[in-house]
Amino acid sequence: MIKILKTQGNARRGVFETVHGTAQTPAFMNVATCGAIKGGVSALDLKDVNCQIQLCNTYHLHVRTGDKTIKELGGLHEFTRWDGPILTDSGGFQVFSLANLRKIKEEGVNFSSHIDGRKIFMGPEESMQIQSNLASTIAMAFDECVENPSEYEYSKQSCERTTRWLYRCKDEMERLNSLHDTINKKQMLFGINQGCVYDDLRIEHMQKIVELDLDGYAIGGLAVGEPKEDMYRIISAVEPYMPKDKPRYLMGVGTPGNIIQGVKRGVDLFDCVMPSRNGRHGHLFTKQGIININNIKYEKDLLPIDPECDCPVCRNFSRSYIRHLFKAKEMLALRLCVMHNLYFYNMLMQDIRDAIDNDTFDEFAERNTDLYDKRI
Amino acid sequence: MIKILKTQGNARRGVFETVHGTAQTPAFMNVATCGAIKGGVSALDLKDVNCQIQLCNTYHLHVRTGDKTIKELGGLHEFTRWDGPILTDSGGFQVFSLANLRKIKEEGVNFSSHIDGRKIFMGPEESMQIQSNLASTIAMAFDECVENPSEYEYSKQSCERTTRWLYRCKDEMERLNSLHDTINKKQMLFGINQGCVYDDLRIEHMQKIVELDLDGYAIGGLAVGEPKEDMYRIISAVEPYMPKDKPRYLMGVGTPGNIIQGVKRGVDLFDCVMPSRNGRHGHLFTKQGIININNIKYEKDLLPIDPECDCPVCRNFSRSYIRHLFKAKEMLALRLCVMHNLYFYNMLMQDIRDAIDNDTFDEFAERNTDLYDKRI
Repeated sequence: MIKILKTQGNARRGVFETVHGTAQTPAFMNVATCGAIKGGVSALDLKDVNCQIQLCNTYHLHVRTGDKTIKELGGLHEFTRWDGPILTDSGGFQVFSLANLRKIKEEGVNFSSHIDGRKIFMGPEESMQIQSNLASTIAMAFDECVENPSEYEYSKQSCERTTRWLYRCKDEMERLNSLHDTINKKQMLFGINQGCVYDDLRIEHMQKIVELDLDGYAIGGLAVGEPKEDMYRIISAVEPYMPKDKPRYLMGVGTPGNIIQGVKRGVDLFDCVMPSRNGRHGHLFTKQGIININNIKYEKDLLPIDPECDCPVCRNFSRSYIRHLFKAKEMLALRLCVMHNLYFYNMLMQDIRDAIDNDTFDEFAERNTDLYDKRI
Repeated sequence: MIKILKTQGNARRGVFETVHGTAQTPAFMNVATCGAIKGGVSALDLKDVNCQIQLCNTYHLHVRTGDKTIKELGGLHEFTRWDGPILTDSGGFQVFSLANLRKIKEEGVNFSSHIDGRKIFMGPEESMQIQSNLASTIAMAFDECVENPSEYEYSKQSCERTTRWLYRCKDEMERLNSLHDTINKKQMLFGINQGCVYDDLRIEHMQKIVELDLDGYAIGGLAVGEPKEDMYRIISAVEPYMPKDKPRYLMGVGTPGNIIQGVKRGVDLFDCVMPSRNGRHGHLFTKQGIININNIKYEKDLLPIDPECDCPVCRNFSRSYIRHLFKAKEMLALRLCVMHNLYFYNMLMQDIRDAIDNDTFDEFAERNTDLYDKRI
């Protein structure tokens, strides 16, 4: 359940309560793929960058170290030492994008691990079992994320199968939550809307999955890289059919501008590898636009990455030092940049929340949507 | 100057005062080659691992980003944001080991940068100028570090040249410290004892360099990798000729056992890449010996790296999680392990200081010299 404190247009300012603490929404989930943010950022650092929710990838944790081992070790919270909410994805997206030799059947998917080629079967039940072992706060439904664009007919059939899979996910999650040795017996399940770029499929699918009365609903298949016109149109198309009292999650999105526009259309939760991935390349978000710290013009620049930022990196280190660290191939460069970018994203959400609280969100969106995405 | 508070045999417990703060000795200097500890450890983290003195490499900073740029940026303290003492080496060791096409003349050394092949000349004056630009607390004399073993006659001639170079270093450092735009006008200069494995050359050289009444004296050419019998014999041979009121520094040493034995023979300062380099490979120092965290036996181990350690890593993370991070090739693995190992070294020095204070150093050395170096 999400408690909506305030709205401005479709933008929602809420409080999302979980067994692992409360998140103020709109919120950005920080992506710790293998149980750690890439770039050497620990769960302790996540507190310093104002992270509210950590996201971990089911597929990666299943193939390396393994969910059963992590269960024995007390679950993801004990393992990573992050004590706030954790969302795990279903593993489906990675199965369809990373793994080899996939074959989709009604039961689920056969694939080979991208690490050691080991043959693995994953269906709705397996995905729920793995996520239950990981003991995340929120499990995501196992779905097929079709390529974009896919044919209408294939998209329709895939959607229908994803709906059938969702019923199996719900049944299995209820069973797992009732077992005596389950770590998180209140694990939530979010359904995922699919339907490619076809509004009618999207709406029909949303209507069907809402019938299951799950803990939250996500919009899948619109991650960064897809045309943003499709993204915005589809959010606006399906939003009226999403329950008002459940959190809404736009998966894999996006740029700061995408997030602002997602909030404007009624979304509460976001996740994206962009802040950490771009950070590792020295592409840094600031309130003036995106800078590339490798640029020679920063060689003797004593300013912090963003003079308007008060993150632990900007409070201490100069552009010139960080540029030097990249040139010297020092790992610290990556860490500092990832931390700054995550802080930027988490503070962007804070600014968005403040703007909704103050009835100034429309102006905020107008002013910053393009500005924050611009390379300067 | 060093103030000796207490001795036990040749072991000295002292206080070394500098313009950038005081170090309790014996002390270990933490190696931040390019102005950052490899493994993603920042100057802020150095405080958390109880570092007292940071060591930076003159050669690396000269060829990448450049000492003149760093001077413009306010010197190494401003640049790296480490506010305690910083020691810079002379660049000589890297010139002789890393760079190409070296040719040694009386004036100095011609070599090519290992980064871009750029031809560089470095002699005593250039080394002092670079270190003055970097504005470290302590500059090291420019010396030739001969290969071990080298012929007696070559070692003797090299020693004599190193002594002549030392006079030029001292003159140049005095000149630089008197310039109006020098950042650290109280930069100290340490001389370096050479003489390969020949006790008579070592003693003769030590006697000659002590005549210059420098701020401290180092024993060079005995770094980790050289036979430890030579190391211990030579320290014992030259120690009686070293001033009692000046800090003594054993360069590039070593294992925990080497350090304990160095202290026993009268050394105050140490540095080594071992804690950071070994950490990056998952080889971790503990009070029970050295463990390899990649070992399968740690897969489900909920204990910290060292149950007797209270470093930020051991207070938070398990062996199983750190092993997982290595398997998943997560940079965080390296960072956590480097931090633990540096903390181990810095706390080893604390334990050594406590033992001298309590007149229990001999028992401490007896008990731990082999134990801490043993792979378990």
